[in-house]
Amino acid sequence: MSDNDVFLADCPARTTLRLIADAWSVVVVYGLGQGPLRYSELAGRIGGISNKVLTQTLRRLERGGLVERRPLATAPPGAEYRLTPLGRSLLDPVSVLARWAEDHADELGGDD
Amino acid sequence: MSDNDVFLADCPARTTLRLIADAWSVVVVYGLGQGPLRYSELAGRIGGISNKVLTQTLRRLERGGLVERRPLATAPPGAEYRLTPLGRSLLDPVSVLARWAEDHADELGGDD
Repeated sequence: MSDNDVFLADCPARTTLRLIADAWSVVVVYGLGQGPLRYSELAGRIGGISNKVLTQTLRRLERGGLVERRPLATAPPGAEYRLTPLGRSLLDPVSVLARWAEDHADELGGDD
Repeated sequence: MSDNDVFLADCPARTTLRLIADAWSVVVVYGLGQGPLRYSELAGRIGGISNKVLTQTLRRLERGGLVERRPLATAPPGAEYRLTPLGRSLLDPVSVLARWAEDHADELGGDD
């Protein structure tokens, strides 16, 4: 049992929500849902993400323990990114949210 | 059937995700899940949210058609906020995400 509550300002749940309830975090976690990808593969899959934003998002997810970076013994050296078990447990909630966005985007009013 | 895809940069699904995959949007939608609330009640429920951020979040959700503002015939004049049918359809995905944050916050690495 946990006293974590997203309605409380200083609660770890609020900090966690700031990490996971972020459009780029959702797209990256969702994008890694089929299995590990190299950085360039992930960048290619996510349209319109800059290297800076993708790198920052991956680092935040790594620090949170949701994504793992594995060096690959290739020439030139590469790395792949994969969801950790904790990250995989987030895949369902994130997929539900992403699918809601896909299913209801046309019903939403303009954001400008 | 929809061609909306959160992986596509210019797709309405991406715009939608930016609106809904936001920590404040999640907390506000989740907070309205039990029924309509006045502004002050909502502000009281959500710890650590400034009036500026709450007002901006409510306006974005109103523009998106997820939240409705209803003037109340009270003295002094007040208003209450409620989820629209579209907003209520978002309640399940958002609740799943918020509960994941509450359940797993203690497992996450630091964000600093």
